[in-house]
Amino acid sequence: MLLHLSTWAEIEGFLQRSETVVIPIGSNEQHGPTGLLGTDWLCPEIIAHEAEKQGDILVAPTFNIGMAQHHLDFPGTIALRPSTFMLAIGDWCRSLGHAGFEKLYFLNGHGGNVATIEAAFSELYAEASYAGRKRGFACKLKNWWDLKGVTALANSQFPTGHGSHATPSEIAVTQWAYPQAIKSANYAPQIAPTGPIREATDFRARYADGRMGSDPGQATPEKGGELVRTAAAALLEDVAAFGAEAAPA
Amino acid sequence: MLLHLSTWAEIEGFLQRSETVVIPIGSNEQHGPTGLLGTDWLCPEIIAHEAEKQGDILVAPTFNIGMAQHHLDFPGTIALRPSTFMLAIGDWCRSLGHAGFEKLYFLNGHGGNVATIEAAFSELYAEASYAGRKRGFACKLKNWWDLKGVTALANSQFPTGHGSHATPSEIAVTQWAYPQAIKSANYAPQIAPTGPIREATDFRARYADGRMGSDPGQATPEKGGELVRTAAAALLEDVAAFGAEAAPA
Amino acid sequence: MLLHLSTWAEIEGFLQRSETVVIPIGSNEQHGPTGLLGTDWLCPEIIAHEAEKQGDILVAPTFNIGMAQHHLDFPGTIALRPSTFMLAIGDWCRSLGHAGFEKLYFLNGHGGNVATIEAAFSELYAEASYAGRKRGFACKLKNWWDLKGVTALANSQFPTGHGSHATPSEIAVTQWAYPQAIKSANYAPQIAPTGPIREATDFRARYADGRMGSDPGQATPEKGGELVRTAAAALLEDVAAFGAEAAPA
Amino acid sequence: MLLHLSTWAEIEGFLQRSETVVIPIGSNEQHGPTGLLGTDWLCPEIIAHEAEKQGDILVAPTFNIGMAQHHLDFPGTIALRPSTFMLAIGDWCRSLGHAGFEKLYFLNGHGGNVATIEAAFSELYAEASYAGRKRGFACKLKNWWDLKGVTALANSQFPTGHGSHATPSEIAVTQWAYPQAIKSANYAPQIAPTGPIREATDFRARYADGRMGSDPGQATPEKGGELVRTAAAALLEDVAAFGAEAAPA
Amino acid sequence: MLLHLSTWAEIEGFLQRSETVVIPIGSNEQHGPTGLLGTDWLCPEIIAHEAEKQGDILVAPTFNIGMAQHHLDFPGTIALRPSTFMLAIGDWCRSLGHAGFEKLYFLNGHGGNVATIEAAFSELYAEASYAGRKRGFACKLKNWWDLKGVTALANSQFPTGHGSHATPSEIAVTQWAYPQAIKSANYAPQIAPTGPIREATDFRARYADGRMGSDPGQATPEKGGELVRTAAAALLEDVAAFGAEAAPA
Amino acid sequence: MLLHLSTWAEIEGFLQRSETVVIPIGSNEQHGPTGLLGTDWLCPEIIAHEAEKQGDILVAPTFNIGMAQHHLDFPGTIALRPSTFMLAIGDWCRSLGHAGFEKLYFLNGHGGNVATIEAAFSELYAEASYAGRKRGFACKLKNWWDLKGVTALANSQFPTGHGSHATPSEIAVTQWAYPQAIKSANYAPQIAPTGPIREATDFRARYADGRMGSDPGQATPEKGGELVRTAAAALLEDVAAFGAEAAPA
Repeated sequence: MLLHLSTWAEIEGFLQRSETVVIPIGSNEQHGPTGLLGTDWLCPEIIAHEAEKQGDILVAPTFNIGMAQHHLDFPGTIALRPSTFMLAIGDWCRSLGHAGFEKLYFLNGHGGNVATIEAAFSELYAEASYAGRKRGFACKLKNWWDLKGVTALANSQFPTGHGSHATPSEIAVTQWAYPQAIKSANYAPQIAPTGPIREATDFRARYADGRMGSDPGQATPEKGGELVRTAAAALLEDVAAFGAEAAPA
Repeated sequence: MLLHLSTWAEIEGFLQRSETVVIPIGSNEQHGPTGLLGTDWLCPEIIAHEAEKQGDILVAPTFNIGMAQHHLDFPGTIALRPSTFMLAIGDWCRSLGHAGFEKLYFLNGHGGNVATIEAAFSELYAEASYAGRKRGFACKLKNWWDLKGVTALANSQFPTGHGSHATPSEIAVTQWAYPQAIKSANYAPQIAPTGPIREATDFRARYADGRMGSDPGQATPEKGGELVRTAAAALLEDVAAFGAEAAPA
Repeated sequence: MLLHLSTWAEIEGFLQRSETVVIPIGSNEQHGPTGLLGTDWLCPEIIAHEAEKQGDILVAPTFNIGMAQHHLDFPGTIALRPSTFMLAIGDWCRSLGHAGFEKLYFLNGHGGNVATIEAAFSELYAEASYAGRKRGFACKLKNWWDLKGVTALANSQFPTGHGSHATPSEIAVTQWAYPQAIKSANYAPQIAPTGPIREATDFRARYADGRMGSDPGQATPEKGGELVRTAAAALLEDVAAFGAEAAPA
Repeated sequence: MLLHLSTWAEIEGFLQRSETVVIPIGSNEQHGPTGLLGTDWLCPEIIAHEAEKQGDILVAPTFNIGMAQHHLDFPGTIALRPSTFMLAIGDWCRSLGHAGFEKLYFLNGHGGNVATIEAAFSELYAEASYAGRKRGFACKLKNWWDLKGVTALANSQFPTGHGSHATPSEIAVTQWAYPQAIKSANYAPQIAPTGPIREATDFRARYADGRMGSDPGQATPEKGGELVRTAAAALLEDVAAFGAEAAPA
Repeated sequence: MLLHLSTWAEIEGFLQRSETVVIPIGSNEQHGPTGLLGTDWLCPEIIAHEAEKQGDILVAPTFNIGMAQHHLDFPGTIALRPSTFMLAIGDWCRSLGHAGFEKLYFLNGHGGNVATIEAAFSELYAEASYAGRKRGFACKLKNWWDLKGVTALANSQFPTGHGSHATPSEIAVTQWAYPQAIKSANYAPQIAPTGPIREATDFRARYADGRMGSDPGQATPEKGGELVRTAAAALLEDVAAFGAEAAPA
Repeated sequence: MLLHLSTWAEIEGFLQRSETVVIPIGSNEQHGPTGLLGTDWLCPEIIAHEAEKQGDILVAPTFNIGMAQHHLDFPGTIALRPSTFMLAIGDWCRSLGHAGFEKLYFLNGHGGNVATIEAAFSELYAEASYAGRKRGFACKLKNWWDLKGVTALANSQFPTGHGSHATPSEIAVTQWAYPQAIKSANYAPQIAPTGPIREATDFRARYADGRMGSDPGQATPEKGGELVRTAAAALLEDVAAFGAEAAPA
């Protein structure tokens, strides 16, 4: 079920059979000369929606803006400060927890989100810990490329030039889902440099076209389709395992 | 152009010819027994995307969660506290302003958002005012039903039972766009009661099935299509006027 | 009763017969060449204190600083950021609610306050909604010019040049109450221009003497007295109605 | 001059001859069986307004709500959390500093405010210190009872039973200014107990009628008048000295 | 017991016989040409650890960074904004209170901390007061120089040139504890000037070498030892008294 | 150099030859039946102080409280909420950056800190990114067990039962530095269970004595000494490399 295409009564019904909800989460940020600005939120959305066609999971609307401050010098990037991001994640979780969901599964599409999302979970737990009570829900973060089989597949598809930002694997996923939005460019150099991530002016000075360590020219819609199918199947499994996990006595 | 299906370089190019961006904004909240939880963010997204097909505007990703605390006792609702909502709007605007956009046009789909969005704009302006500098961008909020011709059309389509929440007009818009997700129910009473909006428990006690003053049973996809076409045309005009507005000397 | 001229024991006594309190709220901000800086908090204070002489209502101290960031380039303006304003309103309401007041009636004197006050109310309700409990009090905002009969009277007094800031009606109210502080000036133009409200430098560039759309030269203490009497009577009625409103079963 | 009864142009004129502004600040809180809830903001207002009649000082509107959390179990108390109070003081100061005031003199009427006001000043200075720039204005806090001669006079008027809350001196000041609101009660014991100040339930358990160490029965309007005259004269001197203080080279 | 060298089970045991914990708190900031940057947190730590050898008290880790914004133009200073400081103190107290400590005794080494620490305590109490519940723990702030006998001793040791920052007494305490880190310099003038404390640039312009009113050249390790012994003995007494204090009935 | 045992003038001197500062950072939290509550801040402090004896590095005071909300049900734990922790880290960094340090190296002793520290760095960078300016300093986080050679050594010392909390390696480090505080206990089971980390009540229910996956009984002071020597040497190298890293052109 897609939560946003359901009624509240249908969600009430779903809660009778499951207390788990999947939230695609990403970022809207530059992805080099050919990557879509939406890449990092489109990927988990594409995968979660594909999984939803195959299994009885509930998928929330996509949390489409994340921690992308370092990309702000490339237009089209929209970023939340970590502190804002944490508050927003907190309100999403409190809302879903209030409704009765006990397992909140975030399928993430942006490496730069990880630290802040984990900090947001701790903030939510801390609220309960100081008060000496149970939180009532558990949160889990999973990057789509960490789903079983996905990185292995990507490594076999792109043995060199995968890199860490504007990677051929994520671009392939969007090419499969949005073939009408496939872009091309000459990459110079073919494989982008890599290094540390700091403030936006530093980032643009280091990474002239926005890529980090990647050669996105290797992406094809077909490879994207393979990745999506692998990820969607693994997602169903992983969500089921999380949903089945029992609380301590 | 849809921002999330564009590259940063394409946005850089767009900024050469326009400094205006349209941001659909809404809420994910219960909409009565037959309305989709996504109704309030889907409507402005549907209208903005329709307009984008007809005119040279840039549409940002949809801001899909808003001020919906009063609906929290109906499952599926996801709400931001006003304070969180303001911070998030602030970061969206700062990001877009940083990129060079000078006119930020929010097409809103949820009446409950209006006060907080306006407060968020004032917070952004205040930041500049205390510092004695220009803000660099102007913000505008427009509810889709306030676009020229829309309310008149809705009044003619639904002379009674339009109401203020889970209205037949907004449900018609989603029916036109998502015909596969049309729901039905018996409404009792046919036209829902109305009254004040306070905390969630108060809300659910007053409005048993979530509707306020409305009879959504009148919605049809055809009426939705008429509304979308009227709104999309008016949006193009309104965005153009906002973009053309000059700053004071 | 004026709360600040009462003892806590007298308030305890008042609470035996009423759980409603009236809070005049406004702003301290420039009001053109002849309007008092205090206009927007003086008007609701004047009206509430006049009503208090005629009926058994309890009037709290005046909340005299509001959302006036756009006026900051005119000296004498004191403004709260919306986020600060919301926190302060929140603490006022929590304090009064803690004492047992269940109906908090804000009589407002500044249009620019409306969005932020409404957002503050929602923030307070949200606190209860996420916690799944009742808030314990209800908040109501009423602009003094929206009290029954007031706008109609102002329209008849000032058929042209009423405008929206530094209006002849609000200035008349202060002239009636503070005749020793009546100011005069030549207005050029007689009726000020109008337009959007943004940051302070933008505001001062658009509205050279601070007025928006108004000709305050039409104000007289007599007209002010008529407005105060009409507003005070309507206030008593409106407060009584709010106090009588029952919570849902 | 009273700022709120002036126009912005008059303030612009005042700034030509002085960059100092006096802000009465206090609290609205229980003051025992006979003290007015407004005592702590009325006293500095009364004194500042009296001084304003005698010297060329500018008096801002009164900051009438302060740090009174410990009094919340007595109805009529309105309190700001320290964090809220600091933000509000910050915005007042930024507003006045933006207008060109370089010396912000807070005349305080509530001992419980002192720590938070000083912390608020440090927060304002810190903003400049981290940025490596000048703050542009200096803040000063003075309790009215610390004005030259006042405590000596109060000691001579009330050699025993002055206490620290609901004191005869502060009540005398309000009796002088608001003779129509003089209250009486039997005090038992005549001199109230004293001790620590903690949360509101602890406070009410320790101090049954709200007084701390005081016998307010000794207050008279005449003694209040003496206190006001002494304080007003000293205030003019102290404000002048603060205004004359030069910044370091 | 030193908390950080204990196990949680040992703390559980300690709580069986005492609910009081001592927290040394200070600041890391410039202390003139010869004072250690750590002076203000080392002094309370030295005294508390000395007392711990002589009596059965529990000493928490040292809170080593405080409110030192005015010293930021001297390198080595590390400062928390008051708002940050308050939040951190709040979390320390909530943690210790959650564990069952009912008396939190802060031994402070920095005058500039006092206002903010007191405001932090009020913030903690306010949290309980608005909620209408008991806080569960009481907080006490004591400056080490306010412990019984300490200021009298310092006055006899340093009849002139004690001053208020980089004082010979605090430097003597660190000399006694860290003889390997005794520094020397020519002081010009021998006794430093004094005046107000504002932002960092103002502070450095007024106080060229960082001292305020002091002649630290009088410090010796022997005088420091006397101060430590006096303070440690008084601390044990004061902590015992605080621990023995009963809550109101 | 130890910053807290230096004068500001000595730091000014150090800045002539290096712009790098090392900040030990950890947490004060339960470490099982035999681990010290201070383990996680003592370990990086021990290692950094050991390195400081061997190389010309500057070591700041230890940031001794971190993100430990999950341990709050074991007494002696002191935790900062992630949001508080981020603000405090921010103020430390701004202070040191203001002084001229361009490389801030955090040596971390607590895995639970990682996400929040990284989020804090991003918050600091974001401040600069939205403003379109350089941050002026770079931040680096290194866990002491990730220093070159340390984990390999620990694996050889403790091939089984190392675990992730209250590990024999961290306990060995504190045993080496604080032999007077070595504790013993019977562990049951010898190797503790492992699992997820959530709120405090959940944690204590899962991990009865506080350990996660570890058998701390294998710790000896000798092994601790080996770890410290390896880590200290690697720290000097790693700090030098970070200090030598050039900014992009």
